[in-house]
Amino acid sequence: MGQRCPISPPSPHNRFPPPSPNPIFTHPPPGCPTGGDAPCVCVLSPNLPSPPSCPTLGIKSPPPSPPPSPSGPSSWPAAGVRPTDPGALSLARAIAEEAPEEVTLVGVYAHCGDTYGCRDVPAIQAIARATTSAVLDFVTTLRQAGVPCPQASIGSTPSCSHPVPEMAQLTELHPGNYLFYDLQQTLLGSCQPEEVAIRVLTRVIGHYPHRNQLLVDCGWAALSLHGRDQAPTGCAAIEGHPQLRLVGLTQEHGQVEAVDGRLDFERFPLGSTLALIPFHACATAAMHPVYYVHAEGKVVELWRPVRGW
Amino acid sequence: MGQRCPISPPSPHNRFPPPSPNPIFTHPPPGCPTGGDAPCVCVLSPNLPSPPSCPTLGIKSPPPSPPPSPSGPSSWPAAGVRPTDPGALSLARAIAEEAPEEVTLVGVYAHCGDTYGCRDVPAIQAIARATTSAVLDFVTTLRQAGVPCPQASIGSTPSCSHPVPEMAQLTELHPGNYLFYDLQQTLLGSCQPEEVAIRVLTRVIGHYPHRNQLLVDCGWAALSLHGRDQAPTGCAAIEGHPQLRLVGLTQEHGQVEAVDGRLDFERFPLGSTLALIPFHACATAAMHPVYYVHAEGKVVELWRPVRGW
Repeated sequence: MGQRCPISPPSPHNRFPPPSPNPIFTHPPPGCPTGGDAPCVCVLSPNLPSPPSCPTLGIKSPPPSPPPSPSGPSSWPAAGVRPTDPGALSLARAIAEEAPEEVTLVGVYAHCGDTYGCRDVPAIQAIARATTSAVLDFVTTLRQAGVPCPQASIGSTPSCSHPVPEMAQLTELHPGNYLFYDLQQTLLGSCQPEEVAIRVLTRVIGHYPHRNQLLVDCGWAALSLHGRDQAPTGCAAIEGHPQLRLVGLTQEHGQVEAVDGRLDFERFPLGSTLALIPFHACATAAMHPVYYVHAEGKVVELWRPVRGW
Repeated sequence: MGQRCPISPPSPHNRFPPPSPNPIFTHPPPGCPTGGDAPCVCVLSPNLPSPPSCPTLGIKSPPPSPPPSPSGPSSWPAAGVRPTDPGALSLARAIAEEAPEEVTLVGVYAHCGDTYGCRDVPAIQAIARATTSAVLDFVTTLRQAGVPCPQASIGSTPSCSHPVPEMAQLTELHPGNYLFYDLQQTLLGSCQPEEVAIRVLTRVIGHYPHRNQLLVDCGWAALSLHGRDQAPTGCAAIEGHPQLRLVGLTQEHGQVEAVDGRLDFERFPLGSTLALIPFHACATAAMHPVYYVHAEGKVVELWRPVRGW
């Protein structure tokens, strides 16, 4: 039997609004329909393949040179050493051989964050191909030099969502956002809207006709500020309500407006719930100590994330 | 005996860098000097008055009209009802009288977030005065109408840091950020740099001479993105090192550059710690499940924040 969300009893004023005739997000409403201790994070029927378990230990290496991205240079930082760096081989050898009882060289990993600057799939795949090639070439160099290197891996959700055949030669993929997906990934083309598996439930707690706004009980403490200036609907999209947008967040409150014209306040009575699809699931998930996992209308598990500090 | 931070043993490469000759922040280094499970939040010798305990229940009321702020209109949302609203009195009466066994009217509260848009103390005090007056006038109205209203309160850290005499007539003040203060409050003039009581400790984990950057193990998951575009040093200032600035944050990493010229990498060996003064303490504190409270060089308490969901 599934556990229930920390909710108040269903009432006519306390349920998901009916889907819009033209919803942005067509995923069926989750089984935790009625607010209560909103805002809470809900994970919808996680039917995606299990994500890779742990990051590969070893050298973190960025692509060797700016990959052929038509969308311009990456805004992401490079950590680790470049595989073309003259010291890369000796570093790998030192990791593998200097203190084998303490440190093991497990593999080589690169995260092609450049893909977040791409505007189409061919650009993402070009980066994925270049990154894969850089990693595999370096592993070959290591092996030829007598340094065992069992794992070869790349990350980034955009690249792993549009894999190229060359990636079959890797031993692991590490797309961290892939577990949930989010509004950002739909904008990048990594997924369809109905594949996004995370929502923040929030309740309408105020009507402000004089400024044509609803107030909801979800602020940046439940959503983060990620995406504030990047998505047309703000830090989140409002499921089933493309006519609404989140225009402001304070610590515990959000302001919702109509994209055009007057808000239909009667559709959103006080206490009714809205489901927010976050712009950046990683950032939103980091704000919550527990996730309510749904399947077929019931909460089937509670996930409590492990934190590093 | 104080508890210790989750730290590794002190070593020459694992201690606070010496203070700069011209530090931005002159607070003595905390007693948790050596990283370990960095990034961790440290609270320095909390010698401020105890903060007010709980928000007043009751009507949340914004100032009745745009307060006389020379710095322009507020960007903060107004929640609750305006005290000049024709329905305000009847709402207060309904709260006080309709279900006394379930709801008690404790008082009237206003948060003058407008103060965050001010550029000098007279502007902050003008708002504090107008807000106080609006709250007290409404309480008087209530009492004259036979509605008991024991509490009258305002919030906002800038206003409560520069109290005006009229505020002595209030029964409570609610400056939420006042417990810690932060970089934003120093920029607003609410406090002196040495009064900020919160740090995030982070370790240097990479030298990147080719791009003149240090990599540290603190990203937005430890600091939040608040202040990214608002402070000259990014989302945080680096204590004792006004020549450094935080130029980028990913989930677990931060990039530190010199404000001008070349970084002196030898001053910041791998494993050395930096203390970050967050732009927005509320947002940074929300990222951490435990705070290490220091006094005289020792961790004297661990604080675990209560969360609403």
